[in-house]
Amino acid sequence: MGDYRQLWTDLGVDLEKHDKLCAVLPELYGDTYLNQEDRPEGMNYFNFVVAEVHGLRIQELDEHRKKGGKVIGTFCVFVPDEVILAANAIGVGLCAGSQFWIEDGEKVLPRNMCPLIKAFMGAKVGGTCPYFQSCDMIIGETTCDGKKKAWEVLEDYVPVHVMDLPQMKRDKDYTSWGSEIKDLIAKVEELTGNKVTVESLKEGIRIANAKRRALKRLYDLRKYKPSPISGLDCLLISQIAFYDDPHRFVEKLNELCDELDEKVKNLKDQGKKRLMITGTPMALPNWKLHSIIEGLNAQVIVEETCTGTRYFENEVSEEGETIDELIKNLADRYLNINCACFTPNTGRIDDIIKYSKEYNVDGVIDFNLSFCHTYAVEHKAVEKALKEKDIPVMHIETDYSTEDAGQIKTRVEAFLEMI
Amino acid sequence: MGDYRQLWTDLGVDLEKHDKLCAVLPELYGDTYLNQEDRPEGMNYFNFVVAEVHGLRIQELDEHRKKGGKVIGTFCVFVPDEVILAANAIGVGLCAGSQFWIEDGEKVLPRNMCPLIKAFMGAKVGGTCPYFQSCDMIIGETTCDGKKKAWEVLEDYVPVHVMDLPQMKRDKDYTSWGSEIKDLIAKVEELTGNKVTVESLKEGIRIANAKRRALKRLYDLRKYKPSPISGLDCLLISQIAFYDDPHRFVEKLNELCDELDEKVKNLKDQGKKRLMITGTPMALPNWKLHSIIEGLNAQVIVEETCTGTRYFENEVSEEGETIDELIKNLADRYLNINCACFTPNTGRIDDIIKYSKEYNVDGVIDFNLSFCHTYAVEHKAVEKALKEKDIPVMHIETDYSTEDAGQIKTRVEAFLEMI
Repeated sequence: MGDYRQLWTDLGVDLEKHDKLCAVLPELYGDTYLNQEDRPEGMNYFNFVVAEVHGLRIQELDEHRKKGGKVIGTFCVFVPDEVILAANAIGVGLCAGSQFWIEDGEKVLPRNMCPLIKAFMGAKVGGTCPYFQSCDMIIGETTCDGKKKAWEVLEDYVPVHVMDLPQMKRDKDYTSWGSEIKDLIAKVEELTGNKVTVESLKEGIRIANAKRRALKRLYDLRKYKPSPISGLDCLLISQIAFYDDPHRFVEKLNELCDELDEKVKNLKDQGKKRLMITGTPMALPNWKLHSIIEGLNAQVIVEETCTGTRYFENEVSEEGETIDELIKNLADRYLNINCACFTPNTGRIDDIIKYSKEYNVDGVIDFNLSFCHTYAVEHKAVEKALKEKDIPVMHIETDYSTEDAGQIKTRVEAFLEMI
Repeated sequence: MGDYRQLWTDLGVDLEKHDKLCAVLPELYGDTYLNQEDRPEGMNYFNFVVAEVHGLRIQELDEHRKKGGKVIGTFCVFVPDEVILAANAIGVGLCAGSQFWIEDGEKVLPRNMCPLIKAFMGAKVGGTCPYFQSCDMIIGETTCDGKKKAWEVLEDYVPVHVMDLPQMKRDKDYTSWGSEIKDLIAKVEELTGNKVTVESLKEGIRIANAKRRALKRLYDLRKYKPSPISGLDCLLISQIAFYDDPHRFVEKLNELCDELDEKVKNLKDQGKKRLMITGTPMALPNWKLHSIIEGLNAQVIVEETCTGTRYFENEVSEEGETIDELIKNLADRYLNINCACFTPNTGRIDDIIKYSKEYNVDGVIDFNLSFCHTYAVEHKAVEKALKEKDIPVMHIETDYSTEDAGQIKTRVEAFLEMI
């Protein structure tokens, strides 16, 4: 990793505190990732991305900004990247996956809130995330009470534009969501000084769809028995998808998939249990549950989460000759995501059951970040639907601390023995 | 209290469990209310209402239903009573204020949720609330994650219609809320078989406004120093407002206010500290915080809550010659309520500061039901704004259990000494 201290200083990063973060990440990554057996060669690129996580990519953002470009931070799969791309801005999905940021987050937010929200707030409040420091604007959304109210606090630190996501999926809600996307376009145009045209928005859609297709290709390869790649590696790739350059990411991911296409021809099943994780997102570097599961005789085969299928399933139609038609295409794709923020959200259960078959899983872990009410309430319905289909399911509620890792391991072991 | 056991049985009430509830309420009420000194005569009516809480009013609902009328349950000040009244249905704000219902609620909901939500769910799941049992339909809303998702569970027990409240207050959000009210009218017409006409909706508005005016009159009387009525009594009146017959309620409340008009002429200040409570609602029979405060040398003078000013402030305009004009009036009044579910919600802070002066309070208690994220996050901004105005403020987060009563008392005592 090069010397980026001047760059970090210029971005207003708290160097001393940031050094502490930089000190723990490599060890955590080494222990979690580099000890895996028989990793694909193509993972070397993603190793490199992690090694340079606060370096090279931050430098790229800096160069973009020095040329007058803008960087926009997002926290949710409902924010349409296409609009950001169309205005020649760079979108980055922001860091929120480490216990490191919780302490600073709790200075401005209640303690009994979801760790993801406390972490992103802590990253900004403490000035320890160079991505956050590189952002000219944040796009928030009203997907949950915690985030909805956190934007008000965040606004003291960085400009925030909030999109009001409808909480249902009736015809009029698609129209409302289209109107929110239209407002976003105006806001992004104002920030960047760049007009979003039919052509630039179509190009944005093409780029985002290419990313979706590459991720779908990776996930389709996991359907092989055994999967040619670990759940840990796939989770990492999904996490990196949120902030890497999309063109390079697609190229490198497709190279990896080419390798995996060959690899699947010669794999022998080692009898590992195949698990689905459904529920709340796992932001970088939250590898806790995958790490526990894959330390046992099991493999994570698919994540029905925002850092999994919800991010890439369903492409945006590229058909249309006007901005309004393209906005409608965006609204149609994005509002179809089956997040627990909707009422009702039966589509998520349909997805879980569909993926259970497609990915041929032996069991499902319903993963809940602490204090996330929407997913927590849905658990009973998920459990009921899966039991009706004879698919084993367990519920794990946890945060970013490592204190309960032993207990979770014991519960997962018991679950694996049962299925 | 008469014998309503047959009525309760017909309603599907779990008699054995309900008996336990009936056994605790009179003692709690006696200890909390009947020991107060120098109570107004006019409170006798409200004592009677409490004594008959699961009796006479339930019988009235039953008689209404036997004549073909419908009963509709609500849980939120955003649901427009006017629509219910216009369709000749009876609206009841449902029970959700007792620890009694928590255990049953936790059978279907996560434990770390707000007690109000767990309580209403427990009341239905356990079949121990005759009001709930009398409801032909429930009107829910998307004011918080907990309630939004709880409707999905509740739907297994009783028909629910959910109104999607916009999370902001832009022009288009008023239009959206108007559209939700229009959908509600159609739904209520379908349920009752009664058409909502311009005249019946105007009459509904007149009835609801009369209730608002009577409550405003009561609250205005509390501005006297000393207040001629306890905070406990006012809280009870507000709670009863949600389910009593509106005409009788207005008549009896105005009689009480006539008495208080006289009483204020001869009162001597006893130096009690005057407190505002702001924050989350207190549903019947949640008298915990008022009881602690008024057991000390202090009085609750105003509640900036949904069981306080948010319920009655601002009337609905009665002007308009079409349903659409009246719907617009309703949308304008209701969407102006300053609930923490909105982002931003700076209007609430303006209200708190305005009431601090109008009601001449010595300090403010920001009251937070456990796990209510929206109000919890707003606390820091409330605190900051009040400190800037030199108004003392403290934060209390609690649920319905009595375990922390001693600790809260100690904290309130310390606060009273400081102000």
